[in-house]
Amino acid sequence: MNDIGRENRGRFEPGSPREGEYIGRIPIRVRYSETDAQAVVYHSNFLIYFEVGRTDWVRQAGYPYRDLEQDGFGLFVVESHLRFLAPAHYDDRLIVETRLIDVRTRSCTFHYRIVREGEEERTLVDGWTALVCVGEEGRAIPLPAELAGAFRKKAGL
Amino acid sequence: MNDIGRENRGRFEPGSPREGEYIGRIPIRVRYSETDAQAVVYHSNFLIYFEVGRTDWVRQAGYPYRDLEQDGFGLFVVESHLRFLAPAHYDDRLIVETRLIDVRTRSCTFHYRIVREGEEERTLVDGWTALVCVGEEGRAIPLPAELAGAFRKKAGL
Amino acid sequence: MNDIGRENRGRFEPGSPREGEYIGRIPIRVRYSETDAQAVVYHSNFLIYFEVGRTDWVRQAGYPYRDLEQDGFGLFVVESHLRFLAPAHYDDRLIVETRLIDVRTRSCTFHYRIVREGEEERTLVDGWTALVCVGEEGRAIPLPAELAGAFRKKAGL
Amino acid sequence: MNDIGRENRGRFEPGSPREGEYIGRIPIRVRYSETDAQAVVYHSNFLIYFEVGRTDWVRQAGYPYRDLEQDGFGLFVVESHLRFLAPAHYDDRLIVETRLIDVRTRSCTFHYRIVREGEEERTLVDGWTALVCVGEEGRAIPLPAELAGAFRKKAGL
Repeated sequence: MNDIGRENRGRFEPGSPREGEYIGRIPIRVRYSETDAQAVVYHSNFLIYFEVGRTDWVRQAGYPYRDLEQDGFGLFVVESHLRFLAPAHYDDRLIVETRLIDVRTRSCTFHYRIVREGEEERTLVDGWTALVCVGEEGRAIPLPAELAGAFRKKAGL
Repeated sequence: MNDIGRENRGRFEPGSPREGEYIGRIPIRVRYSETDAQAVVYHSNFLIYFEVGRTDWVRQAGYPYRDLEQDGFGLFVVESHLRFLAPAHYDDRLIVETRLIDVRTRSCTFHYRIVREGEEERTLVDGWTALVCVGEEGRAIPLPAELAGAFRKKAGL
Repeated sequence: MNDIGRENRGRFEPGSPREGEYIGRIPIRVRYSETDAQAVVYHSNFLIYFEVGRTDWVRQAGYPYRDLEQDGFGLFVVESHLRFLAPAHYDDRLIVETRLIDVRTRSCTFHYRIVREGEEERTLVDGWTALVCVGEEGRAIPLPAELAGAFRKKAGL
Repeated sequence: MNDIGRENRGRFEPGSPREGEYIGRIPIRVRYSETDAQAVVYHSNFLIYFEVGRTDWVRQAGYPYRDLEQDGFGLFVVESHLRFLAPAHYDDRLIVETRLIDVRTRSCTFHYRIVREGEEERTLVDGWTALVCVGEEGRAIPLPAELAGAFRKKAGL
């Protein structure tokens, strides 16, 4: 059979911060509804936490996502990868570290690292999401030049 | 910077069915709560749909997941990859196709393909999750031999 | 202080089935994501289960909710009451019993009773939701006469 | 048939603040995952927001809910009522106002009012949840005297 080796698993290390790069750090308090019967945060919630980090990163870049939608286009998640390295628990105060790591003509990719406040060296979950820019007719379109420029500048890319 | 090329994105094609392989096919009706403001299924829900498929696959293999937990061990999701190729909508009847594609000493990997009923040739979402077997003390342990054997047999591995 | 006495708690007993009344009964398998750290179904999920029951009731009455929205109006939940009498657990097979108990000019009210399959006499959760008909401008409008008629007929009202 | 009149709907007005009463006010930013295809916050999420408010109220009273569970008892939601008066949208900054309105031998009741930041006079959603104290064997037990005392003091009851 085909083999999912480590080398092909989609893991990605974003490396050291770039010069002038903005790295988002937003706190999240784990809600009871987000835990499961194993008394840990249910894994799909980390995709939601990733989005909380991404929304805030985009806001800091000067483009509230809500405004993007009102301008008639959107950013759709088209691919994602997650590693769950250690559990998070009810009432934990987590930090989502968000970095923009790639901007292409029609897409961009964010990387996330989730840690517990006060234990920032230990990664609980990491991963990335690739997003495609979509216009009103629902088709992929180039990222607006102004947006792409602001994203690259904020990310030090 | 590092590059997330296509070749390193964690994409995986499980290939043709193996001889004797059981492929799960379980229907899911999209709930209103699972849609978002873009009027499509919010992406994190597909990890939940994957689990609905996996739970049923494991049940068909003769090991209801609930019994596993009562026997003092669990299967934890440690890594996951998803591609969102086309949107699903409210009230759609989806099918989760689930295949077990890899069994190792302490882990196993399931692959999923989500389609709309009646349009089975078109993949809406696909991806995989790797699970590790964890004992009562919370550490990775070998999959019980009986379970591993039953899994391999059911999967034609 | 004001007192929330039993008599004012919003509890409602829908009574015996009416002549010709359709009572919906739809099964739901509890998902792992719906449990919480107390190893029971997190309480907000029952509002989602209520909606699964309501959607199916409306479909059986000949008005798929999706079509309603495409015709330019919607039914918004404006009020709800729930009693949590006994817990539900992972992998339980539940039944949502749904009854339409009231139809007014601009609103209607559904009642729900959630039981475990095979133990139908024991109520786990019950409650009701009142919905208002809303037109394209977002304001309450009368229920379309055809819909109200079909609802009353199906409910034996 | 029975009638759900206004007077029996479970609505409750908590009245003016009591002398010395602590009223919790915690902000919540609406997440994309919490919206639905009508582009508003899906109604079941407000029960989750209520819990965010309650958790913080209890923490301010000096009893982090997590510690309660570690001491071998819990507070289970047994009944709830919600009114949805106006919609909330993606990225809105909401405030959950939480008040403890009743403490009895084995139960207590919290009331919530959700508003948009900067428009505090307009209620979007309000409601209450009644909770019962449950011991390790899963049965209702009296609230520990120290807890009940601290709750009453904080609430000005």
